[in-house]
Amino acid sequence: MNRAEYDTLEQRVKAQYFNSIVGHKNVCLIGTKDSASQGNLAIFNSLVHIGSNPPLLGIIFRPDSVERHTYENILETKEYTINLISTDDIAAAHQTSARYPKQQSEFDVTGLEPHYVDGFNAPSVASAPISFGLVFRENIPIPLNGTNLVIGEVQWINYPEDIVASDGFADLTKAHIVGCIGLDAYTEGQIIQRFEYAKPDKAPRIKA
Amino acid sequence: MNRAEYDTLEQRVKAQYFNSIVGHKNVCLIGTKDSASQGNLAIFNSLVHIGSNPPLLGIIFRPDSVERHTYENILETKEYTINLISTDDIAAAHQTSARYPKQQSEFDVTGLEPHYVDGFNAPSVASAPISFGLVFRENIPIPLNGTNLVIGEVQWINYPEDIVASDGFADLTKAHIVGCIGLDAYTEGQIIQRFEYAKPDKAPRIKA
Repeated sequence: MNRAEYDTLEQRVKAQYFNSIVGHKNVCLIGTKDSASQGNLAIFNSLVHIGSNPPLLGIIFRPDSVERHTYENILETKEYTINLISTDDIAAAHQTSARYPKQQSEFDVTGLEPHYVDGFNAPSVASAPISFGLVFRENIPIPLNGTNLVIGEVQWINYPEDIVASDGFADLTKAHIVGCIGLDAYTEGQIIQRFEYAKPDKAPRIKA
Repeated sequence: MNRAEYDTLEQRVKAQYFNSIVGHKNVCLIGTKDSASQGNLAIFNSLVHIGSNPPLLGIIFRPDSVERHTYENILETKEYTINLISTDDIAAAHQTSARYPKQQSEFDVTGLEPHYVDGFNAPSVASAPISFGLVFRENIPIPLNGTNLVIGEVQWINYPEDIVASDGFADLTKAHIVGCIGLDAYTEGQIIQRFEYAKPDKAPRIKA
């Protein structure tokens, strides 16, 4: 499909097509509070690893959309949680994408239980196998289309210890962490193969 | 794990742990040429959807790393391809992460065949089920850790037409597109469920 054809697609078809054709995505729930302690929970699929030292995660925000409450709360309170969800919670997680009014917490309407880590104000999701607590570090505007890259620094990570191997590798499939395709399809993955660190003078070596 | 514990992890364990615990990732090969027409192909797992109108994709670059050649070529020639790979090509794709000298094309050493789209200089990967041709639009520095968000605008998309439904949804599983966990584990996903557009006054509805 060339660009001229793409540009003629009906708006909803275009969004569904481009969001799905670009490849497998992560999916996460972001938990926040506003300065009046009103909770908020919203689903995102634009999480990006910025670096591990220090541990930095980015999210692309469309500040004019249903994501607005999360965005405003992060800038207001500087704390948020990122929660990876399991196959058990996909319906409730998807429901957080509905346009609830700001005074209604998605924790209440979806039945997802909040969990609080000592000394941290933003709520995490009790049933999420993996959760991160972050403090806001930088808000980078992307003038091309009015989006923003919001970067936070990880303060703590909750996870089931038995999914992490001695080399540090976390096998997400053991916790049934889901991914997604496009705007509405939730996926569960299986590991096909792991490979050793690649070297120019060696053929690919499968990791046992 | 709190931040103090995290900071004491050995450097390789830290990178492996944080890269994998952050959730499922996409994986793609970026094809470029330098101004002397030397080809390059490198694997990335930091692709992020910036917007669909216009169609914009971002990649996080660590300009001091093995990714340097791709980064320099994009800034030099302003054209690149992003290629989603299938289960058949994971060993060859992983091998592109080895530190080959710049005068050696990863197309030659891995056996992945280049394919050229009319009027577009950067090589795509012939065996990739889905490929995008992009022109460079913006290079956004991230001072927090010296990385860069490079954004390109899609000019064309090659894909198997039978994976796209009438609503625009591209079912990547039909083309055996892989994802990844961490630095070295390649995954194949299955769709568990699709949901209708969420509304505040309706319970989650499964899409048939």
